[in-house]
Amino acid sequence: MPDVVIISTGDELLYGTTVNTNSPFISSLFFGSNFNVRKHITTGDDLNSIISAIKESLELADIIITTGGLGPTDDDNTVEAVSVISGNGIIIDEESNRKTMDYFKSMGFKENRLDIKMSSVPAHSHVIQNRYGLAPGFITAINGKTVISLPGVPAETEKMMTSDVIPYLKERFSFRDNLKLTYRMSGIRESDINTMVSSLNLDRSLKIGITSKSGVCDLVITGLPDAEEFKNGTDSRIRNSFSRYLLQNGAESPEHELVILLRSKGLTISTAESCTGGLIAKRITDIPGSSDVFIGSVVAYHNDIKTGILGVSEDTLLRYGAVSETTAAEMASGIQRMFRTDISMSVTGIAGPGGGTDLKPVGTVCFGFRIKDYSRTFTKKISGNRDRVRIFSSLYAINFLRDFLKKTD
Amino acid sequence: MPDVVIISTGDELLYGTTVNTNSPFISSLFFGSNFNVRKHITTGDDLNSIISAIKESLELADIIITTGGLGPTDDDNTVEAVSVISGNGIIIDEESNRKTMDYFKSMGFKENRLDIKMSSVPAHSHVIQNRYGLAPGFITAINGKTVISLPGVPAETEKMMTSDVIPYLKERFSFRDNLKLTYRMSGIRESDINTMVSSLNLDRSLKIGITSKSGVCDLVITGLPDAEEFKNGTDSRIRNSFSRYLLQNGAESPEHELVILLRSKGLTISTAESCTGGLIAKRITDIPGSSDVFIGSVVAYHNDIKTGILGVSEDTLLRYGAVSETTAAEMASGIQRMFRTDISMSVTGIAGPGGGTDLKPVGTVCFGFRIKDYSRTFTKKISGNRDRVRIFSSLYAINFLRDFLKKTD
Repeated sequence: MPDVVIISTGDELLYGTTVNTNSPFISSLFFGSNFNVRKHITTGDDLNSIISAIKESLELADIIITTGGLGPTDDDNTVEAVSVISGNGIIIDEESNRKTMDYFKSMGFKENRLDIKMSSVPAHSHVIQNRYGLAPGFITAINGKTVISLPGVPAETEKMMTSDVIPYLKERFSFRDNLKLTYRMSGIRESDINTMVSSLNLDRSLKIGITSKSGVCDLVITGLPDAEEFKNGTDSRIRNSFSRYLLQNGAESPEHELVILLRSKGLTISTAESCTGGLIAKRITDIPGSSDVFIGSVVAYHNDIKTGILGVSEDTLLRYGAVSETTAAEMASGIQRMFRTDISMSVTGIAGPGGGTDLKPVGTVCFGFRIKDYSRTFTKKISGNRDRVRIFSSLYAINFLRDFLKKTD
Repeated sequence: MPDVVIISTGDELLYGTTVNTNSPFISSLFFGSNFNVRKHITTGDDLNSIISAIKESLELADIIITTGGLGPTDDDNTVEAVSVISGNGIIIDEESNRKTMDYFKSMGFKENRLDIKMSSVPAHSHVIQNRYGLAPGFITAINGKTVISLPGVPAETEKMMTSDVIPYLKERFSFRDNLKLTYRMSGIRESDINTMVSSLNLDRSLKIGITSKSGVCDLVITGLPDAEEFKNGTDSRIRNSFSRYLLQNGAESPEHELVILLRSKGLTISTAESCTGGLIAKRITDIPGSSDVFIGSVVAYHNDIKTGILGVSEDTLLRYGAVSETTAAEMASGIQRMFRTDISMSVTGIAGPGGGTDLKPVGTVCFGFRIKDYSRTFTKKISGNRDRVRIFSSLYAINFLRDFLKKTD
């Protein structure tokens, strides 16, 4: 199993002003493959640090991947570092140089020493043309090990990894991307997934990763001893355990599955939002093609809009308050009538930091739904700051409807 | 200047399923201080990898900070690693242990071997109580160097760094957090900031970091030779160069400054959104207290809502299309009238991936504004995918109005 070390260079990474996304991206391509990522190293831009990082990695790994330090300035030292370690001189890659010169000419810039530097590579290297930027990458053999150097701009790194480096590793090193199963879910916490997975007592050889972002979790399982057997056995145990939470129909997010479900049932939807301020509409319209089912929304932030536009009665506001299930119900009815949709949902709550009371503290959120003639309301207490209350309010609304539509086939 | 190495441990980091945010967070605390972060290392959970990482760091740095590996399971090996290297035995920290036992009792769990492990620390260490979780951190002297070990949960790491470790470093190592100036801007690209900063020919001893997220950029400058002189000289040169883009009034985002400006002028606002689908309303209502100025929004995704609710004429849609400045103007007038606000803004465009034509390709976005009796429209071509078109559409709308209000004092 070839070992891999990933080196990221850049002072901005050591300043902490930039988060390193290249290392996790590159690692994720190896996760579950027959290559093993041993270590990530982040160093500054200076020549000696880069040389040390590559040298120590050559002791540890078969494949070393560096990102960054390939630009035109004095702070770009990766070409020189690889040249020093390999003993190969530095040459100009003609194809890259021609492209760079053409580019600068087209922009009306005069060429200078720096442009030449951008096309330089260590001699005897396999050059990876950069179809997404200017500086080329290169692959250099050193003492029977392989050093792969890529630019540090994430878009360029990522595209060169998937389009060039992985195919190269497949051809030269029998890279094999093993089966990797991703279970995407919503409505469950990362820690609860962890507990539930532990209780399944899965084979200890499996590698398990859990990631969570804004209420959507991925359980990733790889290192499968026998893919066929896993598919027939463990896979269905996992699916059964998590069936309530799993996204289905190939959906990448709860709102994606909601749009898929609405489309397949030929239903239209509208939303009336107070504390979420348009976030539910925003999430639904994140999905390409949502215009087939989503008609529109009223963000009724001021109470005058709740009464004057959505038709919530003054009496309801006075008696129950703006944050109440009665108000939510009337908002949902109002928008359904006004926008003539099959389904509508409404949210009204206290996102904070101000506005809370003893009876209705910050995080109190009321939801209303109209599904044709059927009405439903509920209230949730959501902990956390304003952002979290708003994100989870939108998620609860979307997940309730998604659940409902799945149950009523 | 003490040198620092930051070690992150965790298989999930090498899988690429989790992005390492601890290293940049810790680094940012040292950025601009009299401490120098030399390297980040990420290793797996196994004992030998952690021991190797700490040993190599002891060669390089005075202060080594590790995160992760302090939990109760067999995969948690940092206590043992520090114990092996320091030659100190492992002891139970009574205070942590009492807290852990109390916690488990309160949850109705029985205690077991694992709970004890969570309170273990190397002997002769300075224990950092974890007021945000269970496993304590600790500081251990090894060969005249200092190894600081913290849990890996980002919320715990971050709080223990700021509340415990930084004060400790101030007391024991004369840690000094030097002046750091942050210039937050919007409406300018990272690469253009870079070019403009270069042309200012600032003192080469300054450290300059530029970060960019969703159209908001921070230019961070530190390493100031003489703070007073800088404030009087270079600072105003920077402010002059970037005056068009700088956020003012203590605002943290363009929408924040917009809300501040509207409030100070006593103006109300509403939005009518098509392709942004509620994103502008969402951004404005991200700001606590936006309810003082933001009345509400209509997301008119379907053309029936543009005509039936906002009062865009059928004739306009037929003659100019939904994505036109005429439609944008009528949407803005419609929402201003309907929601009775001083100001309104509207957006209608083609976010893609579908819907583009030769004349109006994906990324064509029309904007409309009503500021009391004044009307204004314009069109932008925005490159990139659906997300980017929507994010930059919302940003252009907010930035136009922000600019307008600043110019008309």
